Amino acid sequence: MSFQVPYDMRLAACGSKHLALYQAIRDCIVSGALPLGMKLPSTRELAVLYGLSRGSVSIAYDMLAAEGYVRSAVGQGTYVAGDDVRSDTRTGVKPSKQTRQTESSAPVLSLSAWGRRLQWDAAEAGQPFKSFSEESEPAVLADECISFKPRGMGEQWFPWKSWKSAVTAEWRRRGPVQAEERDISAGSPELRRAIAGRLRRERGIVCNAEDIVVTGGSMQAIALLAQLLLEPGQAAVVEDPGYSGTQHAVRASGAALIPAPVDRQGIIPEDWRARLLFVTPTRQFPTGAVLTYERRLTLLEWAARRGAWIVEDDYDSEFRWGGRPIEPLKSLDNQKRVIYIGSFSRTMRQEVRIGYAVLPPALRSSFLQAKQLYDPHPAGLTEQRALAYWMNEGEYDRHLRRSRRIFHRLQERLRFEFRQLNHLFTVHPADAGLLLFAQWSGSPLEYDRFMAACRESGVSWGDGAVYAASPRPDERTALFGFAHLDEEEIARGARVIRNMAEQMELVTASTLAKGGTEHA
Amino acid sequence: MSFQVPYDMRLAACGSKHLALYQAIRDCIVSGALPLGMKLPSTRELAVLYGLSRGSVSIAYDMLAAEGYVRSAVGQGTYVAGDDVRSDTRTGVKPSKQTRQTESSAPVLSLSAWGRRLQWDAAEAGQPFKSFSEESEPAVLADECISFKPRGMGEQWFPWKSWKSAVTAEWRRRGPVQAEERDISAGSPELRRAIAGRLRRERGIVCNAEDIVVTGGSMQAIALLAQLLLEPGQAAVVEDPGYSGTQHAVRASGAALIPAPVDRQGIIPEDWRARLLFVTPTRQFPTGAVLTYERRLTLLEWAARRGAWIVEDDYDSEFRWGGRPIEPLKSLDNQKRVIYIGSFSRTMRQEVRIGYAVLPPALRSSFLQAKQLYDPHPAGLTEQRALAYWMNEGEYDRHLRRSRRIFHRLQERLRFEFRQLNHLFTVHPADAGLLLFAQWSGSPLEYDRFMAACRESGVSWGDGAVYAASPRPDERTALFGFAHLDEEEIARGARVIRNMAEQMELVTASTLAKGGTEHA
Repeated sequence: MSFQVPYDMRLAACGSKHLALYQAIRDCIVSGALPLGMKLPSTRELAVLYGLSRGSVSIAYDMLAAEGYVRSAVGQGTYVAGDDVRSDTRTGVKPSKQTRQTESSAPVLSLSAWGRRLQWDAAEAGQPFKSFSEESEPAVLADECISFKPRGMGEQWFPWKSWKSAVTAEWRRRGPVQAEERDISAGSPELRRAIAGRLRRERGIVCNAEDIVVTGGSMQAIALLAQLLLEPGQAAVVEDPGYSGTQHAVRASGAALIPAPVDRQGIIPEDWRARLLFVTPTRQFPTGAVLTYERRLTLLEWAARRGAWIVEDDYDSEFRWGGRPIEPLKSLDNQKRVIYIGSFSRTMRQEVRIGYAVLPPALRSSFLQAKQLYDPHPAGLTEQRALAYWMNEGEYDRHLRRSRRIFHRLQERLRFEFRQLNHLFTVHPADAGLLLFAQWSGSPLEYDRFMAACRESGVSWGDGAVYAASPRPDERTALFGFAHLDEEEIARGARVIRNMAEQMELVTASTLAKGGTEHA
Repeated sequence: MSFQVPYDMRLAACGSKHLALYQAIRDCIVSGALPLGMKLPSTRELAVLYGLSRGSVSIAYDMLAAEGYVRSAVGQGTYVAGDDVRSDTRTGVKPSKQTRQTESSAPVLSLSAWGRRLQWDAAEAGQPFKSFSEESEPAVLADECISFKPRGMGEQWFPWKSWKSAVTAEWRRRGPVQAEERDISAGSPELRRAIAGRLRRERGIVCNAEDIVVTGGSMQAIALLAQLLLEPGQAAVVEDPGYSGTQHAVRASGAALIPAPVDRQGIIPEDWRARLLFVTPTRQFPTGAVLTYERRLTLLEWAARRGAWIVEDDYDSEFRWGGRPIEPLKSLDNQKRVIYIGSFSRTMRQEVRIGYAVLPPALRSSFLQAKQLYDPHPAGLTEQRALAYWMNEGEYDRHLRRSRRIFHRLQERLRFEFRQLNHLFTVHPADAGLLLFAQWSGSPLEYDRFMAACRESGVSWGDGAVYAASPRPDERTALFGFAHLDEEEIARGARVIRNMAEQMELVTASTLAKGGTEHA
């Protein structure tokens, strides 16, 4: 049999037979010389071929399996891992159209384990790489179309003029970064002070500017925290359904993803064997559930007992118009195990790439260091200063007060329209946020047909499947974002959905079956 | 003896004895339960303790050693790695002042392997984390002080007013990101077109906007490329001396760093066993050497033969006032193995965080995907558009022409002053760039004393040791940045240096020894 790996070279370098074999096979998998799905020789064959004991070969195979390079099944042999990944190159990398065209002249790409994890993640999702940002990006729709896909605040509601003049004033005012500004690597000191003041006042979080690091949006903080705190062989808990960006970050780190179910009281605590928990207690994303106080305490106890860390993603606590805000985990955290992250990309505009992390003392310098690897100089200082000015002058609060009124009205309008659709969708209650989360009442097949038909008629919404951390073939959920629409558009979109339901005769059957009341 | 690791838990989970032991010990090292420098039990002791064969224990120790968790020396036993790292907590993390104060209440931090590599790197450098950005940041100096530390262009030379009005105009002009702008994840299309046009015209690089991804400075591109293409067990070549940011990025990836010596013709090619080479052919950083054409071809041949990738960092090709520009590697690259990266942080201001990578087709989608993990939405689009406008309107070229004249004059002034110091420093020839690289002619001890004395008198410069990838105890080099100074300041700084040399009586001895001619 022919099976050629650079064993001798590796043996000369490391001196250990099983390590050399492990490294030689790994090299060939990484380089694509051993293609995905290929069956490897049996331990007996390989032992004969390289003059090794079968035990040494087994150890090498075990190590490869432990790191995910190969998969073994009793009685079926050992395969280069990824055979279930749809792939038409030898590297497991799904080529885009562009690479396909130039394939003949392009060299074979072999990515690092990190890079392959990113790619496989994308390949498993069954598409080229779907940026999590695309979830909230506008689709290209004709004039007559209404998209309920969540994508933050609409242009018409944002005080663009006031914000632009704040930024241009800051540009005019400022010179370059001054020599005396020593503390800018964590972001603009003015903005960090403004955020700390706001968190104390609005969220009961006692922190000061030194505890805060400004990031380019909250996703950057999530990615860096996963990278700093997780590695292969460890595990992290994410909410299911939840923000897919968090799922990406955990998968990229190589850690195992533990999907934690969510009910109407938020994430259901368990005694997870995990190092890290990502949670959205204020308003679970995307269901909107508010985590109960008891569960908050349970999570904190869990973290203290397990020596784990909690990332509290408070992604849009600002848009709340009812209900009692419960203390953030961070304000209850006497063990200093909670990392609180926030973002201005929801309350401002997505283009405003300003997020922040409030870090426990033990993590601050490591986090800053990790950030500096990608951004040795802080970016967007002018916008950060403009935002600080905006906050200090009360403009930010004025904007929030105004937006809250608008979004409350829009949400009520959407709820009103959905009363006539409640035989199709069970809308989760929510007293905050920029979207409604709804459960499909009928069969999955009905949903898929219905969604396709509505899209054909020019109305689309966010598919809940995008946010699922584990597959749920029997369930269909939908997200209806409304903050970029006006009342007339909401009514128009709902009308199309209703008409389609009538046309498809979904009305009678489901209405009779479900009783037609909104779950509350 | 007492040695407690969660072996049983791990064994129950994985079923393999040596893997379980490996994981259990690794867990305890990561959590700090086994402190740095601790001697581990002998294989015999551990075998008895856990009822294992000595062979299984040896395998677990080999695996731990291969991943850098432990170090063994024949006859001396096995130790938790990092014993040579100065550390006063159990985690190997040097606490900052702040963490020290709150130590009693703060939990033990256990970082991922990636996080530990970043930290150890910093700890080995003998200081808390020294950002590579600090190399070029201004020191806090009194009025009378002159710092030759390289830090880009001075405020007085940058057309701040024109740039500010370009940015504010862009802010006024623009609305939010429009629905039809589908291609912004790689950065502003206008800017990518402008860069592609410029590269074709000025550098002979045939590429178009689709090949370019805009990054937040070139360091972001370097960090992402190291992460995508390298992992533990692999190796990357960096220039020695070279940009310390690149060294950080390689170390963070876990790959081995191969320092490649540099002479007056740039990096000296070898048949490195490596996956990746970082090189600055246009003007080696920091020596200023221009890589010969022959060596360029040799590097390309090497990459093709080894299946390796080359990152060509063309960090300041714009500031050139003499000599013949040699073709960039990228323009000679018919194997599509060169990634070309550039930055506007040198030609504009450090605060302008705009860099870019020209990617071979095979790498483009992976790179974009990696970037999106940290920045799902591109940041700084307004500044990117303003820069595109500035370039298209000819403002950027006007700025460069003007700056070239100024920096040429400043460099000549600095050279002139150094003619009277050439018994102390051998200045490398350079017909470009914003700094002079100089070799100390005397003993290391003399240099250290001299540098300290000059600093006391208010004059400092960049220490070459910061850029060394391998220690060179017998050599002292210095960087003299001049682009932030004016002629009068340069003369004043040089005068202090001369006076100090006379005062310390360094003049006669070294002058006689070296003959006092500038190396050219």
